[in-house]
Amino acid sequence: MTQLEAARIGRTTQAMRKIAKFESIDLKTLKEGIAKGRIVIPLNNRRLIPRVCGIGEGLRTKVNVNIGTSTDKPEIIDELKKLEIAIEYGADTVMDLSIGGNLKNILQQIIRHSTIPVGTVPVYEAAVSAKDKKGSILKMTIDDILQTINRQAQSGVDFFTIHCGITRSGINLLRKYKRVLGIVSRGGAILAAWMAYKNKENPMYEYFDEIVEIARSFDITLSLGDALRPGSVIDATDAAQIQELQTLGKLAQRARERGVQVMIEGPGHVPLNQIKKNVQLEKKFCHRAPFYVLGPLVTDIAPGYDHIVAAIGGAQAASCGADFLCYVTPSEHLRHPTIDDVKEGLIASRIAAHAADLTKGLKNSLKWDRDISLARKQRNWKKQIALSLDPKKARLFRLSSRPRIADVCTMCGQYCSIKLAEKCLKNSQLS
Amino acid sequence: MTQLEAARIGRTTQAMRKIAKFESIDLKTLKEGIAKGRIVIPLNNRRLIPRVCGIGEGLRTKVNVNIGTSTDKPEIIDELKKLEIAIEYGADTVMDLSIGGNLKNILQQIIRHSTIPVGTVPVYEAAVSAKDKKGSILKMTIDDILQTINRQAQSGVDFFTIHCGITRSGINLLRKYKRVLGIVSRGGAILAAWMAYKNKENPMYEYFDEIVEIARSFDITLSLGDALRPGSVIDATDAAQIQELQTLGKLAQRARERGVQVMIEGPGHVPLNQIKKNVQLEKKFCHRAPFYVLGPLVTDIAPGYDHIVAAIGGAQAASCGADFLCYVTPSEHLRHPTIDDVKEGLIASRIAAHAADLTKGLKNSLKWDRDISLARKQRNWKKQIALSLDPKKARLFRLSSRPRIADVCTMCGQYCSIKLAEKCLKNSQLS
Repeated sequence: MTQLEAARIGRTTQAMRKIAKFESIDLKTLKEGIAKGRIVIPLNNRRLIPRVCGIGEGLRTKVNVNIGTSTDKPEIIDELKKLEIAIEYGADTVMDLSIGGNLKNILQQIIRHSTIPVGTVPVYEAAVSAKDKKGSILKMTIDDILQTINRQAQSGVDFFTIHCGITRSGINLLRKYKRVLGIVSRGGAILAAWMAYKNKENPMYEYFDEIVEIARSFDITLSLGDALRPGSVIDATDAAQIQELQTLGKLAQRARERGVQVMIEGPGHVPLNQIKKNVQLEKKFCHRAPFYVLGPLVTDIAPGYDHIVAAIGGAQAASCGADFLCYVTPSEHLRHPTIDDVKEGLIASRIAAHAADLTKGLKNSLKWDRDISLARKQRNWKKQIALSLDPKKARLFRLSSRPRIADVCTMCGQYCSIKLAEKCLKNSQLS
Repeated sequence: MTQLEAARIGRTTQAMRKIAKFESIDLKTLKEGIAKGRIVIPLNNRRLIPRVCGIGEGLRTKVNVNIGTSTDKPEIIDELKKLEIAIEYGADTVMDLSIGGNLKNILQQIIRHSTIPVGTVPVYEAAVSAKDKKGSILKMTIDDILQTINRQAQSGVDFFTIHCGITRSGINLLRKYKRVLGIVSRGGAILAAWMAYKNKENPMYEYFDEIVEIARSFDITLSLGDALRPGSVIDATDAAQIQELQTLGKLAQRARERGVQVMIEGPGHVPLNQIKKNVQLEKKFCHRAPFYVLGPLVTDIAPGYDHIVAAIGGAQAASCGADFLCYVTPSEHLRHPTIDDVKEGLIASRIAAHAADLTKGLKNSLKWDRDISLARKQRNWKKQIALSLDPKKARLFRLSSRPRIADVCTMCGQYCSIKLAEKCLKNSQLS
């Protein structure tokens, strides 16, 4: 029985109990959210992980970290270090997007080492395998795809990105209403190339029911991918993107009917003033399925700083109702990310998620801010650092610049505003 | 004659002409904005600078960089390097907030080296001088303040932060409706301490007309400071803050009546969903004077990353109508910023400003994004890097991770989505 099916008949699972406690919400509300498909729990029923998480309405905004090898960087060692960093700095989930090296082995190792849910994009392995064995990704068959999905499911993957919404009709829309950047989704581009070569419809669309069946057996959450997401703010919210979103909404309903949990992936490059509309459309077309956004990136001009660009968009998206943020690293658009890039990207996304949570009316959401602000007021540096999102960096900054007066910092020194004001606000002369 | 007075009688100044050209707006619109007090040009009439700027409605969002010594870091050399970095990376203005070392000399050198408008907070020098000469900042007199303002005006300062809105009544509000963090403005704390000690009203409030007179002689733009801005998201948008804003609105009108240009400073620590309201209130109470915000910081939990926290808030504020962003560095709340911190903070603010400008309907605002996206589509790395906000960092990232195939990057290598999709979108089989 999937979490969705359990919720529908009012049954409480161990994961639900953990999540309700972690989120400080009552089990009934949580189960209703799951039953209605507004909350998902990505958790393969063949494995147990210490840190399960719920994604969706009424829960804290979650953050995903992408890791994985590339053809230029096929070594697994750095990817396992990235996984460690992701877990240490509070990622809620991780996706293995490997396309270089021994993909089966890499995925197995990532699953073995991960204490948080693991997601994949199975079409990558199917395509890479077709390239390795048959000389071209274009020789991939639907059986290759379904077998890969099945094998990855057995190995313990908790959620799959399935690019089932890109259709021949969508690609024709791209050709009709030209974009600056056509397709920037790797999975989407693989499928589009395959569709063009084979002159066939998208196999993930045509065989969606078969994919749903596999997902159901393992209670894998399907994350319906946005192959036609915009790759430039110029292309945002166009016909191809919206048509795909509507297709995803229909497929989401089909998955839910079969008891399969589903969330929806969203853009991408979107100007700040179009983000709210994007979230609203997803909630409408996809029947309030959890919305999983990549960024969004609110401008194209800042390669090297796209974690900041994405934090701006992510905070806005989540405050408008997006549920799940895929981090973006400073290396986006330039190179395979380093271990430090992963950390910087994750921290930026967590800031965005928390900033949005302060606006979502969640229970206790202001507690962290209150606690650290009180430590700041008391000039209790030990406590302020311990309460920081990244205590290591905060401590490093503090130690790098020691003030002459112990309880202030080197910015204001003896003219510390908090200290000056504290005295005056106590001074009875001013009443 | 001030820029405001010139605009009122329809006279065009050299600065107006430069700004209209830079902003791609017509002179008439610009002059109307200045005449109505919705646009200011911070430019001391005793000097010429190569990069004048306009701040306000219909213009691009501007970014200020704070530099200056502290009592723990009194050396000027690093501050001049920060000035260089600020100019190199596109700051529109710079503020010298020095409180350590020889303040007169530091300010003179900063003005001499700056090609962009320079602002100060004169009460700092008045207070530090009282401390040095009389043993305590509390021994500062109104004459000390006015003399400092006059001397700084003569030395060429283009805009002054004047904390004229903090009153005894406002401080009483703080005492009545307790905050987590009372006063976090350095100028505000100095004045509050002085007011408590002297049992007197704020001298910047009482002698506002005298300050306006000095500003008028030099056409210095007054930036009315928010001494009672919140220092924690918990304290945002409270009675003390709003009362001060209303006071600033009244004083702004008085300055304008005397032909003095004026803008309004704003918070501070504000949750994402209160930012729009803060901008609207400023525009209402202050008769659409340009709004100059510090951040805003949308959460308190991320010392070490407050440039990102501020970029989220700054983008939101500017997209809601704020005109001028004061950058925040990663070191905020922890230490006196390093040269690199200044750069990182400035870049983050410029991203926020540009992201907002894409939503403001400014002419040509999308051109930069279109150009870099086209370079990205063409995999023209040289051009993409040249068009980056920070070409040096983009180039460094690119060179640190060379792909085996020259026209892609190491993220996707041979599976570059742009390249795969390009082929397929050209393929006629798919029509």
